[in-house]
Amino acid sequence: MTLVLGLDVGGTSSRALITTLDGARAGFGRAGAGNPVSVPLADAVTSVASAVRAALSGLDPREVRSAVMGIAGTGRFADPVVADAFSDAFAALGLTVPVRPVGDVEVAYAAGTLEPCGTVLISGTGAIAARIEDGLMTTTADGIGWLLGDLGSGFWLGREAAALTARELYTRVPDGPLTRSVAETVLGTIPAAPSRQAADDLIGALHAQPPRHLSRLAPLVSEAAEQGDPQALAIVDRAADHLADCLAEVHTDGPVVLAGSVLTGSAPVRAAVIHRLARRLPATATVLAGPGELGAARLAARLA
Amino acid sequence: MTLVLGLDVGGTSSRALITTLDGARAGFGRAGAGNPVSVPLADAVTSVASAVRAALSGLDPREVRSAVMGIAGTGRFADPVVADAFSDAFAALGLTVPVRPVGDVEVAYAAGTLEPCGTVLISGTGAIAARIEDGLMTTTADGIGWLLGDLGSGFWLGREAAALTARELYTRVPDGPLTRSVAETVLGTIPAAPSRQAADDLIGALHAQPPRHLSRLAPLVSEAAEQGDPQALAIVDRAADHLADCLAEVHTDGPVVLAGSVLTGSAPVRAAVIHRLARRLPATATVLAGPGELGAARLAARLA
Repeated sequence: MTLVLGLDVGGTSSRALITTLDGARAGFGRAGAGNPVSVPLADAVTSVASAVRAALSGLDPREVRSAVMGIAGTGRFADPVVADAFSDAFAALGLTVPVRPVGDVEVAYAAGTLEPCGTVLISGTGAIAARIEDGLMTTTADGIGWLLGDLGSGFWLGREAAALTARELYTRVPDGPLTRSVAETVLGTIPAAPSRQAADDLIGALHAQPPRHLSRLAPLVSEAAEQGDPQALAIVDRAADHLADCLAEVHTDGPVVLAGSVLTGSAPVRAAVIHRLARRLPATATVLAGPGELGAARLAARLA
Repeated sequence: MTLVLGLDVGGTSSRALITTLDGARAGFGRAGAGNPVSVPLADAVTSVASAVRAALSGLDPREVRSAVMGIAGTGRFADPVVADAFSDAFAALGLTVPVRPVGDVEVAYAAGTLEPCGTVLISGTGAIAARIEDGLMTTTADGIGWLLGDLGSGFWLGREAAALTARELYTRVPDGPLTRSVAETVLGTIPAAPSRQAADDLIGALHAQPPRHLSRLAPLVSEAAEQGDPQALAIVDRAADHLADCLAEVHTDGPVVLAGSVLTGSAPVRAAVIHRLARRLPATATVLAGPGELGAARLAARLA
């Protein structure tokens, strides 16, 4: 039997998928954060190895003939300390082929389509559109991080919801589903009267946590939008405008893959983006990406 | 002789002005950061006392009949530890009247006009518009901090300039005055060719510093706008749109006072804002605020 290994390694979890060359699932494992940008190198290696060990359960690691690890910041593997730490761990698990690091953007694209050329639009914690030519990322739009951009990302959605709630608290009691749920999530209560203090407390609490954590409020936008909350729907529409503009900056032809936790997990944002793409790019096929480890396994099969 | 003391206490400096009731200057002193939000309480008190001591030089502190300290976050003085630390230091300098803490927004307004009712628009590191009735702040617009808002502030100007430069670096060599000066300031060099690495380095460097430091790039926007750089002028125009919208949210009648380091220090932003106000509020008098300690001394004279 010829097997391939696909890994999706991120700042939250590491997932490993083993398939046959035809894509039939043979094993799966998951563990904690595996990106050495997010956690210490030794912890990252332990997580990734643990996911691979679970995926290899009952299989012969020598049958794995090709392996790809999708990870943000592949440049880190130019450092032999990082590269060796991972390759030593993989060898200890009995793997006999190298595990090739591939950018998470290219892996997200491969998780949606087998076409070699197309465009991927990702909205997760961040947001980026990337042109893919022969499987490789060429030009990009946005993707410049939460501080400077990532318009339409989970961070952006959470920030818009928080700003709306802060402004509202100064002048009136939040009465919409979105602003009420944001106030309750951040303050633990919904003030009974307009309150400068409550607004200042909300702003203070959000400044006191890592800014990226604003993305945790993004699901509240989706939930409120699903209830028809006009304030949430307006934020969703603006997010979709940003994401469609971002895609249009780099898309030329081929399919468009939608990926990332916001586009795969938020039905209102996904629907609003698909609606815009249908109008602006009527001839384009739009597909939703599967899990990153599936994209990595597909790339591994292609390289086998 | 009857004297009054006005203090402008901030996170960067503390300034003390002593005038007669008519506003004639009698003494001035300055020292380092005096806001206990920014520095330890003991250091804050030392700075403020040092500024007052210098201002009192050659004067009899018993002749000071009224004193106002303009400071952001007057709520801190509800804590007796904070209030007592300051009042003990003032008593040690021979002052026989209490020094009343007043919000920096109300002091900024008083630094521009003697009218009891009007509106103040501040753009410094942050941005806020506030309605003033009988000298007291009533409603506000924006002022919700760099993470959620402060549109048109120094932080916002710096972020727009940085985002523009990051996007440009991915696809071409920066060739405008603004993007060239941002690249040079942040990277120490202007890349000779389009470079993903240079863009990533710029983004990484800005994420590695406290986000507020983006306001340090704001003067580059003003300088480039003064050279006629269309990219800088576009950012200035958007800043002015945000600031004019912010003011319009709360302004009803009376004069408009422009305050804060951006509105007092950036000629292009100030001109663009004044242009918009002349069009949108043709009957309104627009005045530029003087220094905060002047506003505080005026309030002290009114209370005397």
